[in-house]
Amino acid sequence: MKIESEIAKRIRLVAFDVDGVMTDAGVYIGMAGESLCELKKFSTQDSVGLKMLQAAGIEVALVSGRVSEATDARAKELGIREVIQVRNALKVKPLKAMLSRLGVELCEVVFVGDDLPDIPVMKIVGLSVGVGNSVQEVREIATVCTEKSGGDGAVREFAEALLRARGEWDRLVERYLSAQDEPTTDA
Amino acid sequence: MKIESEIAKRIRLVAFDVDGVMTDAGVYIGMAGESLCELKKFSTQDSVGLKMLQAAGIEVALVSGRVSEATDARAKELGIREVIQVRNALKVKPLKAMLSRLGVELCEVVFVGDDLPDIPVMKIVGLSVGVGNSVQEVREIATVCTEKSGGDGAVREFAEALLRARGEWDRLVERYLSAQDEPTTDA
Amino acid sequence: MKIESEIAKRIRLVAFDVDGVMTDAGVYIGMAGESLCELKKFSTQDSVGLKMLQAAGIEVALVSGRVSEATDARAKELGIREVIQVRNALKVKPLKAMLSRLGVELCEVVFVGDDLPDIPVMKIVGLSVGVGNSVQEVREIATVCTEKSGGDGAVREFAEALLRARGEWDRLVERYLSAQDEPTTDA
Amino acid sequence: MKIESEIAKRIRLVAFDVDGVMTDAGVYIGMAGESLCELKKFSTQDSVGLKMLQAAGIEVALVSGRVSEATDARAKELGIREVIQVRNALKVKPLKAMLSRLGVELCEVVFVGDDLPDIPVMKIVGLSVGVGNSVQEVREIATVCTEKSGGDGAVREFAEALLRARGEWDRLVERYLSAQDEPTTDA
Repeated sequence: MKIESEIAKRIRLVAFDVDGVMTDAGVYIGMAGESLCELKKFSTQDSVGLKMLQAAGIEVALVSGRVSEATDARAKELGIREVIQVRNALKVKPLKAMLSRLGVELCEVVFVGDDLPDIPVMKIVGLSVGVGNSVQEVREIATVCTEKSGGDGAVREFAEALLRARGEWDRLVERYLSAQDEPTTDA
Repeated sequence: MKIESEIAKRIRLVAFDVDGVMTDAGVYIGMAGESLCELKKFSTQDSVGLKMLQAAGIEVALVSGRVSEATDARAKELGIREVIQVRNALKVKPLKAMLSRLGVELCEVVFVGDDLPDIPVMKIVGLSVGVGNSVQEVREIATVCTEKSGGDGAVREFAEALLRARGEWDRLVERYLSAQDEPTTDA
Repeated sequence: MKIESEIAKRIRLVAFDVDGVMTDAGVYIGMAGESLCELKKFSTQDSVGLKMLQAAGIEVALVSGRVSEATDARAKELGIREVIQVRNALKVKPLKAMLSRLGVELCEVVFVGDDLPDIPVMKIVGLSVGVGNSVQEVREIATVCTEKSGGDGAVREFAEALLRARGEWDRLVERYLSAQDEPTTDA
Repeated sequence: MKIESEIAKRIRLVAFDVDGVMTDAGVYIGMAGESLCELKKFSTQDSVGLKMLQAAGIEVALVSGRVSEATDARAKELGIREVIQVRNALKVKPLKAMLSRLGVELCEVVFVGDDLPDIPVMKIVGLSVGVGNSVQEVREIATVCTEKSGGDGAVREFAEALLRARGEWDRLVERYLSAQDEPTTDA
């Protein structure tokens, strides 16, 4: 996966779909006693990629077409403040509102998606990325696709590719590793 | 996977087995404290396929040979009102009762299954579909099989194939995507 | 996987290890609020195989070297009354006690296992079976191994192979399917 | 995977990262009713490997860059007393403190990791091991890598390789199996 340097340097915000991108599209649903239970499987290797994006000063956002407390819980753990969850899969309007509030232009945004509800957003942002497990319609419209699938390293692969295209990956990794010897932490 | 256009156009109701079709046949069983806990893993990419069937005016039903609150929870989320769950795996009688109530003929029904309890139903409906992970006996009797396995996109693959055979897929996708620009929503 | 007809016909009891045989060796461990939560992933396609063994009059037992309420819950659902769970992985003594109580000889028993704690039992029963994901030491001692892995159809594959070697599979499937047309049920 | 005999014999403590090493890097996050729920998937085949290390008199430790009650629960079950969990992924300092308390030198330690936070530790211990699913930066620095991935037998593969390099595996397996015939147990 290769991202053009010029486009990469313009990016100020990366928005990820959740199901199928941060996960493998699986939702674990059932009951624990009398209580409804729903889990999603996230990847800790993705977490390190997301932290690198944040360390590079890029805003990270989640934009899901499904409402789930699992998404909130994961966002909180990763320090992701920008979370959009809509019940009707209509993502364009809330994303535009978020960008307007943050003062970010559409051309400064990457969207990473896997399925039909992501397409209207992917059509209007600066860089559209499909994951390895994307449906055909998404593959056709995405500027570039990851080799790895959602939930199995796609987010990490994308984060590294974007930061490499910006010429920042090696420096960020070095800083991350050298932080081990210092009294304070930013990783 | 290819479905004959003439048969596809006749279909008014699609019935899915749950375990092995909407899931990979896995059931996650254990305890959460003092409470019994049971989960199943569904796919959000399947959800979009099911919504497309519903948008085409086709009734979607779940017919499970196992009783599980996970199935009810998932059906509710997907807006599936017709749910049969029997403890003894005998699916023919309750399916016929449901069809009679809805005024749907057996020849207007597709059944998608993976295992022995699905065979008696698959023998009497208009179109019988096996998933990629079906047991041998189901493969032999199914009119057609998906390439993908249950829980890993089989439902989505079938939904798209059926709607393409009816000449409706592209129109439905277009309508789904264009709904993003309009004030109301049907996706 | 092929089992000798003469040996197969002698079998009166099939004992399965749980982790790695009825499951893929995964245990899902964590917290749900303040409560410890532990799940295992079983397969519904295995269930049909186990029901066929029971329908053939063969006793089914679970013999686990780990104590887990998930095992009890699954056994109850499948109508398996004979469940041994030991904390120290020493399976020979409790198995012998169970056989003595049931009046079954060691040569009338199959044991299906995947790992070191299963070997002492596999050495003394009439037929020892390893699953596809068995460790090397089990492969070397097993009379025969399934192609499929635990949790992914190994139990179903073994059940069918045993019942075919006894010349009973086709009759059992027919009876299972024809039960659909009758007022009573045995499936 | 092959470990040099001389290095292997020097080892007194094995420290494992948790996510991606004891698991496949997946974290199952969501809600059970009103309670936050988080699970990780461990492997029972790994458990036998860990018990063999312990039976050989080698101290086993978990060193995680993420705080999770799932890790505590699993450690307790496996009889692992040494557990480090840090919120900031800085593992060097707490590991050194642990070694100092136990009177173990860095050159007597193996560290098994998969991702960036493991690298600073891997650089200073006697033997650094990457799992099959390690990121590129870890592969480049690891002395040796397992073929299997975390959560899918990597820990078992490493444990066997280390004990074979020490010439202890066969003796430990024999002792493990013969314990079945004796009144007391050490497995």
